[in-house]
Amino acid sequence: MNYRNLLQTPALKPLLLTARFGLEKESQRVTKTGQLVKTNHPEVLGNRSYHPYIQTDFAETQLELITPVANSVTEVLRYLEAIHDVAQRSMALDEMMWPLSMPPALPADDAEIVIAKLDTHEDVLYRRYLARAYGKRKQMVSGIHFNFEFDDALVQGLFTLQDEYQTLADFKNNLYMKVARNYLHSRWLITYLFGAAAVAEAGYFDQALTTPVRSIRNSRFGYTNKADIQVSYKDLTAYLADLAHLIETGKLSEEKEFYAPIRLRGGAKMADLPKTGIRYIELRNLDLNPFARSGIDKKTLEFMHLFMLFMLWQETADAPDTWVGTGDDWNELVALEHPLVQTKLKAEGQALFDQMHQFVAELDLPTAVQEAVSYFEQLLEHPEWTLAGQMTMAAEKGQTNAALGVAYGQDYYETAWERPYQLAGFSGMELSTQILLFDAIQKGLEIDVMDETDQFISLRHHEHLEYVKNANMTSKDSYIVPLIMANKTVTKEVLAKAGFRVPLGQEFATREAALAAYELFKGQGIVVKPKTTNYGIGISIFKDGASEEDYLTAIELAFAEDQSILVEEFLAGTEYRFFVLDGKVRAVLLRVPANVTGDGQRTIAELVAEKNLDPLRGSHHRAPLEQIQLGGIEKLMLKEQGLTPDSVPKVGEIVYLRENSNVSSGGDSIDVTEAMHPSYREIAQQAVTAIGAAISGIDLIIPDAQKPAQGSQDYGIIEANFNPAMHMHVYPFSGKSRRLTMDVLRLLFPEMKL
Amino acid sequence: MNYRNLLQTPALKPLLLTARFGLEKESQRVTKTGQLVKTNHPEVLGNRSYHPYIQTDFAETQLELITPVANSVTEVLRYLEAIHDVAQRSMALDEMMWPLSMPPALPADDAEIVIAKLDTHEDVLYRRYLARAYGKRKQMVSGIHFNFEFDDALVQGLFTLQDEYQTLADFKNNLYMKVARNYLHSRWLITYLFGAAAVAEAGYFDQALTTPVRSIRNSRFGYTNKADIQVSYKDLTAYLADLAHLIETGKLSEEKEFYAPIRLRGGAKMADLPKTGIRYIELRNLDLNPFARSGIDKKTLEFMHLFMLFMLWQETADAPDTWVGTGDDWNELVALEHPLVQTKLKAEGQALFDQMHQFVAELDLPTAVQEAVSYFEQLLEHPEWTLAGQMTMAAEKGQTNAALGVAYGQDYYETAWERPYQLAGFSGMELSTQILLFDAIQKGLEIDVMDETDQFISLRHHEHLEYVKNANMTSKDSYIVPLIMANKTVTKEVLAKAGFRVPLGQEFATREAALAAYELFKGQGIVVKPKTTNYGIGISIFKDGASEEDYLTAIELAFAEDQSILVEEFLAGTEYRFFVLDGKVRAVLLRVPANVTGDGQRTIAELVAEKNLDPLRGSHHRAPLEQIQLGGIEKLMLKEQGLTPDSVPKVGEIVYLRENSNVSSGGDSIDVTEAMHPSYREIAQQAVTAIGAAISGIDLIIPDAQKPAQGSQDYGIIEANFNPAMHMHVYPFSGKSRRLTMDVLRLLFPEMKL
Repeated sequence: MNYRNLLQTPALKPLLLTARFGLEKESQRVTKTGQLVKTNHPEVLGNRSYHPYIQTDFAETQLELITPVANSVTEVLRYLEAIHDVAQRSMALDEMMWPLSMPPALPADDAEIVIAKLDTHEDVLYRRYLARAYGKRKQMVSGIHFNFEFDDALVQGLFTLQDEYQTLADFKNNLYMKVARNYLHSRWLITYLFGAAAVAEAGYFDQALTTPVRSIRNSRFGYTNKADIQVSYKDLTAYLADLAHLIETGKLSEEKEFYAPIRLRGGAKMADLPKTGIRYIELRNLDLNPFARSGIDKKTLEFMHLFMLFMLWQETADAPDTWVGTGDDWNELVALEHPLVQTKLKAEGQALFDQMHQFVAELDLPTAVQEAVSYFEQLLEHPEWTLAGQMTMAAEKGQTNAALGVAYGQDYYETAWERPYQLAGFSGMELSTQILLFDAIQKGLEIDVMDETDQFISLRHHEHLEYVKNANMTSKDSYIVPLIMANKTVTKEVLAKAGFRVPLGQEFATREAALAAYELFKGQGIVVKPKTTNYGIGISIFKDGASEEDYLTAIELAFAEDQSILVEEFLAGTEYRFFVLDGKVRAVLLRVPANVTGDGQRTIAELVAEKNLDPLRGSHHRAPLEQIQLGGIEKLMLKEQGLTPDSVPKVGEIVYLRENSNVSSGGDSIDVTEAMHPSYREIAQQAVTAIGAAISGIDLIIPDAQKPAQGSQDYGIIEANFNPAMHMHVYPFSGKSRRLTMDVLRLLFPEMKL
Repeated sequence: MNYRNLLQTPALKPLLLTARFGLEKESQRVTKTGQLVKTNHPEVLGNRSYHPYIQTDFAETQLELITPVANSVTEVLRYLEAIHDVAQRSMALDEMMWPLSMPPALPADDAEIVIAKLDTHEDVLYRRYLARAYGKRKQMVSGIHFNFEFDDALVQGLFTLQDEYQTLADFKNNLYMKVARNYLHSRWLITYLFGAAAVAEAGYFDQALTTPVRSIRNSRFGYTNKADIQVSYKDLTAYLADLAHLIETGKLSEEKEFYAPIRLRGGAKMADLPKTGIRYIELRNLDLNPFARSGIDKKTLEFMHLFMLFMLWQETADAPDTWVGTGDDWNELVALEHPLVQTKLKAEGQALFDQMHQFVAELDLPTAVQEAVSYFEQLLEHPEWTLAGQMTMAAEKGQTNAALGVAYGQDYYETAWERPYQLAGFSGMELSTQILLFDAIQKGLEIDVMDETDQFISLRHHEHLEYVKNANMTSKDSYIVPLIMANKTVTKEVLAKAGFRVPLGQEFATREAALAAYELFKGQGIVVKPKTTNYGIGISIFKDGASEEDYLTAIELAFAEDQSILVEEFLAGTEYRFFVLDGKVRAVLLRVPANVTGDGQRTIAELVAEKNLDPLRGSHHRAPLEQIQLGGIEKLMLKEQGLTPDSVPKVGEIVYLRENSNVSSGGDSIDVTEAMHPSYREIAQQAVTAIGAAISGIDLIIPDAQKPAQGSQDYGIIEANFNPAMHMHVYPFSGKSRRLTMDVLRLLFPEMKL
């Protein structure tokens, strides 16, 4: 099969650089000073029997993070980062993840290395067998498994172009076996570039290595089968026959005990592969990169992808088993070289890079690809730039590998906790969606970010699939309900008919009509607002009535935002946001205009600067609260109070910098769920039920929230929001956090009993 | 009770000119030449046992059109116009509505005047009793009942300001009794201004009146009780006592036989009124205005509203019964005056108008109100401007009242049928909503247009309420489903996962990324389109691949419409729209680019002009098809074919004026539901089911619609639309009409078995 020729077919070109990826990453849980923890797997992560993302490997302390299958390197990395974030923030506050492949110093007593406490007895028994067969200590090594699948359409296209194989399954088996052989032959280069298991800490070896090496984990000192466990990679038939024989003869307990650097994947069992065809290949030889937060970086992933395609393209010189055998020998050689010396295989390495350049040129791959090849090529010349090289350089400068592990581990810990409302990898999405994704990953729902900019995700538990947009738009609402809420006139009509108090008012479609109605509103408290827009934009409030000139301005402001406007009676009182989900008020929030509290010493500007240090404050809705500005509007507001930014307020004096209470203009969000009299919670619930919404943020004006509501004069409903922010309730400025995102998950997946 | 003072309270001012209205209008069904029809009430109107809008009055030929309660004169009139439209278009094609209060010439034989064939035996018995007691002929007179209710808040406000009455019910009874007395006293002015029952046709009278009068219907020759049926209007107690006595003594068979010009409304029975309070007042003395399509015009309604407020304001000079008695006498006098002579009550009329001016000034009512009063004031001087005056003028010029009835009746008939896709009163709304409202009214669903510009309506049958937006957004879809369809990337992902063929492609968020990907698409057929916008805007199609320059232009065009764009493989074939509702394909539409067919004689410009005469063609989506333009794009398209607008195509030659097939650029819509091979209908249904939509317009590319679909290469799904137009299926250019709006009603109201 001349893949090299076939790959040059123009129609296949768009498919060459697309592929599917999955990562599995192991990490030891350690204390912040690098000792193995004694705690159980975090309970908050829910049930390990189905958790798709966060499992335990051999030991109870050894996390296994598993990404979903992704369609790009970027995507798989963001999933890994996100899962990493969730894992870190699900652990006890004094625990972190050990960033090295080699475990930290292990307890002297074997009993203190606790086998993972899994539900399934079979799984526990297997781990006990492993402990007996290989010893517990070698099982404590961690690494990254890289799952790779060529684009379906590429494989299908190649299959169509050839006539040697009659079935797609046979063809795929041939294809992936070629890739496997070539990878096994050349994987020493990966060990050279990305090996990062230089030294062993106490308790790993019976006897220590005297110098650092490129990768203990990828050498015979790593977690490998005994030397007599060998299979042929000639073709799938030979491979399976050898493997079957090893199991029959008791040399292996079962398939998964075969710890080759590669696994062939596709069937439920290996024996299915001839029929199903190999669907993807699992590379198991990547060490954790301590310099990357999640243990691997994008550059590496891109190179690995390219290398896989190169393995398909590359011709094989020797007989298959010789070819693989040479590879094994070379890998062992390179793995045990000193990280700072040039490899003995430099010439072979250069030959490989030359071939890669030819491959890139022949397939006319983009310039960036060519540049990446050139970048890694340099590392042949510069062993100190490899991962093991960098670690060893640091050690030579006095930072032992263990100290490096602690330092980077702490750094990643700090990063994960700095902005706990963010989810790494998805920090471009809306906060509510980030928090929902966090909770979903934590509880073991399968997530799929279907459209990042549209905040469109899906969640799955077993066969139960739910789509969610903006974290609160779900299948639980009927289509017409948010459309009711999006239209303030219709909402008011529905609520009024159901007997709730809403402000009286009128809708106007033209400036003329609105102006003509001025005399109707003259002398009364009124609110002028756009009909459909949100976030308080374009709203003018005249508590004691508006002059004709002010009224005109207000109309202009409102029409600037919408084609229709509303003029409504002003309801006196305080506005509260009730977040209602599944018929129950889950949170009540009071929003207070941007303000600072004096200490008798600092200026307003200084107080603002200090308040803005809160990591809860950010900008452009990327934090639960916004920075307080000191711009024109704020200065005007100060001026009206006879103040400037340089004024020094008295101790305890509260200075307001804004009239409006929107969080988006620096306001504070205060949870008042428990302080609110239950009668208003009841009203909010009933109103949302009248609208028929599963999820709504309903705004009530209440003159006295302590006094029970007795009649319709004690409150007014001014709006019901169909896309209510959740993050401000989860991370309020003060008061109790309300994890509304968990309520959404409970609503969608009642069977999980979250 | 000094209402005059109370009404001047500033806080009440915004409420003075708001009120609630309802109209009932009777009309005889006649042939297009003005003979009473012999047919039954139209079957298509569904069940008279619950129809809220279209009923029969006394006779089977006598339609009674009933509006819902409306909050303004404009609203009530549009409802009446709409119901009028539905009634007309639900009748046989050779029937129309008689526009006069006085019936057309009646058959000599009483038996030919058929009593309404109602379901309830009791109702039929009552009509039989009326026929015996009053004769059938007088029952054939038609009129308009005007139901009027002051603004609740006004009544409540007035109640709060006084202390004479302890309960709101008592207060309302006092208020409406005053209005009733004053109206009875002054109603002669209404008879003068709006009386329009000048002459009787054959078969009405035993003996004829010798001259025309203002209103036979409002005189003793109209449909009134016998002279000894009198009640006191002193107060509600006296009124009810008198009425009870009349029934007890057998002078009236039941309450509803009391045919006063006014009815007091509010309770289920009259006897409830002391407890419930009078809620509104029904004025029964308006004749049909033959010059207004629906029998009454806006000016009249506005004057009636003002007159009601005036009746509340006006002081009463005499003792109540005297006051009412004088009114009765004066009304009889005016009703029987010749329409073209000045009324004997001109001085009293002038006094009334003087009071009205004072009333308008005192309450500071808008200028328009004052002008309206002045307008009607002139009619005292000009009896020929009154309705009866105009009818009599026409008669003197040779057009008898009967001929006038035929002429106006035919005119209104033509108007109703001219654009059958429009619904009078709601022609500003989207066509699909107009058609849905038509069907809903026809079938007797209670409609409420909650927001006209937002196409938001509600429909009710008994206690079952449904909201509908854009005629297709309903409670039957879950919220997330249209959001899936609104996002083309997500839609494709969902469909692809479910095994359907969708075009391969990529999404780009920046021009740079899209440009960088050019080489991936080079040489292939591609489609470049904005990610979320609709109606074919911003889409470029390159069937055989795009040059880099064309690709760049296409990207710019797409980005002009959206923040993200899609580049997809081009699927060869014809695009069909499948409208799927409730799991079934209800219509399949082929759209053909704007075109004309030659006749060997006329130029392209002439052929276009002729094709545009089709009343199905309009502009700005206000007709099912759009006018074909002859602008720059069309001329360019002609030029590319070596043609100009002055070219004369051969007989049968089809000349295309556009490349795109959108109906919005003059394309033809062709129903091909039956011609489409069922296998594609099956695919469309299954795809919509996979998305989970109750309603979707899904677009398939099919190379050969006659050949059964055998695999995924035989079709491609390019879009699923969450707001699919329905009007183009209901009124296609050619092929069978598919009344999808009825399918929507069936989906929403299965219990009605429509």
